[in-house]
Amino acid sequence: MHVTIEQANIIIEQATRKAEAIGVKSCIAVLDSGANLKAFSRMDDAWVGSIDVAIKKAKTACFFAMPSGDIGQLSQPNQPLYGIEHSNEGLITFPGGLPIVDDEGVLVGAIGVSGDTVENDHIVAKAGAEAAGSCDLPKHPWRT
Amino acid sequence: MHVTIEQANIIIEQATRKAEAIGVKSCIAVLDSGANLKAFSRMDDAWVGSIDVAIKKAKTACFFAMPSGDIGQLSQPNQPLYGIEHSNEGLITFPGGLPIVDDEGVLVGAIGVSGDTVENDHIVAKAGAEAAGSCDLPKHPWRT
Amino acid sequence: MHVTIEQANIIIEQATRKAEAIGVKSCIAVLDSGANLKAFSRMDDAWVGSIDVAIKKAKTACFFAMPSGDIGQLSQPNQPLYGIEHSNEGLITFPGGLPIVDDEGVLVGAIGVSGDTVENDHIVAKAGAEAAGSCDLPKHPWRT
Amino acid sequence: MHVTIEQANIIIEQATRKAEAIGVKSCIAVLDSGANLKAFSRMDDAWVGSIDVAIKKAKTACFFAMPSGDIGQLSQPNQPLYGIEHSNEGLITFPGGLPIVDDEGVLVGAIGVSGDTVENDHIVAKAGAEAAGSCDLPKHPWRT
Repeated sequence: MHVTIEQANIIIEQATRKAEAIGVKSCIAVLDSGANLKAFSRMDDAWVGSIDVAIKKAKTACFFAMPSGDIGQLSQPNQPLYGIEHSNEGLITFPGGLPIVDDEGVLVGAIGVSGDTVENDHIVAKAGAEAAGSCDLPKHPWRT
Repeated sequence: MHVTIEQANIIIEQATRKAEAIGVKSCIAVLDSGANLKAFSRMDDAWVGSIDVAIKKAKTACFFAMPSGDIGQLSQPNQPLYGIEHSNEGLITFPGGLPIVDDEGVLVGAIGVSGDTVENDHIVAKAGAEAAGSCDLPKHPWRT
Repeated sequence: MHVTIEQANIIIEQATRKAEAIGVKSCIAVLDSGANLKAFSRMDDAWVGSIDVAIKKAKTACFFAMPSGDIGQLSQPNQPLYGIEHSNEGLITFPGGLPIVDDEGVLVGAIGVSGDTVENDHIVAKAGAEAAGSCDLPKHPWRT
Repeated sequence: MHVTIEQANIIIEQATRKAEAIGVKSCIAVLDSGANLKAFSRMDDAWVGSIDVAIKKAKTACFFAMPSGDIGQLSQPNQPLYGIEHSNEGLITFPGGLPIVDDEGVLVGAIGVSGDTVENDHIVAKAGAEAAGSCDLPKHPWRT
């Protein structure tokens, strides 16, 4: 199952509201469970450089079914996944990417947010992901 | 000037309505006048391969401030721009990409649509572009 | 739904048998419906250059839910999709790529074969795709 | 000499059995001694992001005829090969990639495994490599 465009629009709308509420300018990307772009929105005055960062955060969260920041902790120097960013045509492993998991624990897509501090990006992404269900790590099997 | 996210949302909404009205499934991309992604929507069941085609049609229309199909006529074998698709990390030169021009003749962005025949893609793109103004070729200077 | 590894193994086995039966050396790629690699096999003495061709044929068939060769007819000079190969990081639009469609008409993946004439590549791909169901163009919705 | 498709199939079969025995979901890539893909298998529910990681681990092991993790120790900050991941269109330098060496000490290919912890990925890769011979570092000349 993949996130629908109706869900993706709600996710982006809720993420945008959160961004406005905390006063940040975000790029927001929603991917389906195959890591293919479903919907995207760049708020006015958000950094152009954040377009690709947002998409790559979502890709990272989708590819490994976990928050992008979790990969980031594992990929520091001398940590097990050091250098994983070089795979998959580039990953972004700091916070702001979250899997989108439906109520049955199945990964249906991912959201990636970029435009402010990683803490704020995470807050915006979480508001989006929660609009579609949970964003906790799904149990296997997470993709159908 | 760039297309705003408010305008981009209206453009995608109008393009989506047209797609529904003529019974097609579209990927719809809106770029700003710097050819950077502003908003994107993939209707349910639209081809995954159309994501990149839609973005590249919009990029083509934005880069040269003319409909993507106009570039396509100039890039056929033995025509002046033969092979231009190899530039800019890939162009798509068949119809479905249109510049978005405001009422003062200034290029503010571009729309790209992919998902059906090039004729239908063009119809959907035109419905989107017209929601923000004209889609005729702007006079120089077209970007501010 | 995506093709399972059990199905993918059967697909590759049947395609390999057909290749042996007609005396050709093939690269055989199976993708899931998100165009992500599921299984791959290069027969001994098959061209190294066919690895990427096989994967790109499958990608093309998956992205547009039709045989790669159908895209090829539409992308000739002066045809509607001329130059579409420049999208999606490279498509291969001659025969040898086929969608894998289950008995309910849903696209579950694609197969791509390269290593001999396009006619023979198509024969090998068809033997593989048929092991998992039909390879006719699915009706919408083709991906879930 | 290169690993044959018969050997590659046995390697993937043995690696898959080990993955099942220890309860992990793996992507398994086998390359020939030219670092070109020979066979690949993604177990159901294995991470999509592991496809490329598995292939790049095998590439790394093949290119330098040593376990990918050995390169990883040399490429940490302030170590001699810091940044080597940027070469060859991307390397992955943590464990899970192993050279495949025949009984005469000749490098005939490499295996790369991704899908779980690097320790488990290494265990799965080792089970695969041993099905074809040794996985110790070959003496020069390692490729014929």
